Amino acid sequence: MTEPSSPVPAQFDRQVPQGDDRERLVCTSCGFINYENPKIVVGTVATWEDRILLCRRAIEPRKGFWTLPAGYLEQQEETEAGAMREAWEEARARLEIDQLLAVYAITRLSQVQLIYRARLTDPGVSAGPESAEVGLFTWDEIPWGDIAFPSVHWALGHYRESRGKTGFAPFGNPEGKTGAMHEVGAASS
Amino acid sequence: MTEPSSPVPAQFDRQVPQGDDRERLVCTSCGFINYENPKIVVGTVATWEDRILLCRRAIEPRKGFWTLPAGYLEQQEETEAGAMREAWEEARARLEIDQLLAVYAITRLSQVQLIYRARLTDPGVSAGPESAEVGLFTWDEIPWGDIAFPSVHWALGHYRESRGKTGFAPFGNPEGKTGAMHEVGAASS
Repeated sequence: MTEPSSPVPAQFDRQVPQGDDRERLVCTSCGFINYENPKIVVGTVATWEDRILLCRRAIEPRKGFWTLPAGYLEQQEETEAGAMREAWEEARARLEIDQLLAVYAITRLSQVQLIYRARLTDPGVSAGPESAEVGLFTWDEIPWGDIAFPSVHWALGHYRESRGKTGFAPFGNPEGKTGAMHEVGAASS
Repeated sequence: MTEPSSPVPAQFDRQVPQGDDRERLVCTSCGFINYENPKIVVGTVATWEDRILLCRRAIEPRKGFWTLPAGYLEQQEETEAGAMREAWEEARARLEIDQLLAVYAITRLSQVQLIYRARLTDPGVSAGPESAEVGLFTWDEIPWGDIAFPSVHWALGHYRESRGKTGFAPFGNPEGKTGAMHEVGAASS
């Protein structure tokens, strides 16, 4: 999950545009309104038999820690197609989407995550440019102490709860959890 | 569903920033990169007994046509909270979210819609500033000829399919449907 970022130039100011009810970033030079909206992250818990695909991050944030293949949905892209693209970019993985596993809201980051349950169509995975390595792990082999983000813990736990189920309602944030980084060490199973 | 829009000033140009693989809007004057990402619409099919809440739009696009209470998720907002806020803003409706009914991708608009099934906690609804009027309709009373958007047809049909079901997987776009406006006249049931 790469976070695109661009410093906001000095001529942008927080103002409430006419007819609006919230502050927006407005360029004081030309009047351009830079509407900021929550971003959509699409990702997968993808398996080959009883093994789960994880990627060790080659980039910040959380370089060296393990994550699920996931990233920002692009313009004009369907959510399932985006999840498949990310799995290819980060792990050279080809997969079939099964169903929506979870919808998580990371309000601190204004991020909505759509995580799908998926099956690899081929176990031949390898690291893409944003991954240092990738691997297929049984539940007990998962590097629990080196997971990158709280929501990766959630998705793995929810995947396990969903095993053997079809046609279920997607999971949400675990009760009381916001995705704050101090939650990353919480027990996962 | 209001669409925030701001004309892109002339000094913005489409360029591939260093380290990126896609064209972005870059300000040729100051280098600010205006990342564009798909937007999240949150909405509800909200009912009181066997009646469904609809709002007649007081604003363009599709002014005068009927829609579900829905709009853009705001920064730092949870999806269910956003759906409840929109129901209040557009129909002064108070409701309880039941479960995620559907996830639609309107790729033409780079929009992902999260539509929840909900119950009104009070039948006293009234038009907010973006609605000309609001109403509670039985299935047969729905103004089928005056529905604002294709995805409103989809959500109503999926709501009907979901009746009596709990814990189901959310629906997606109907097979082959993209949300193009020529689809709005398609049969809804």
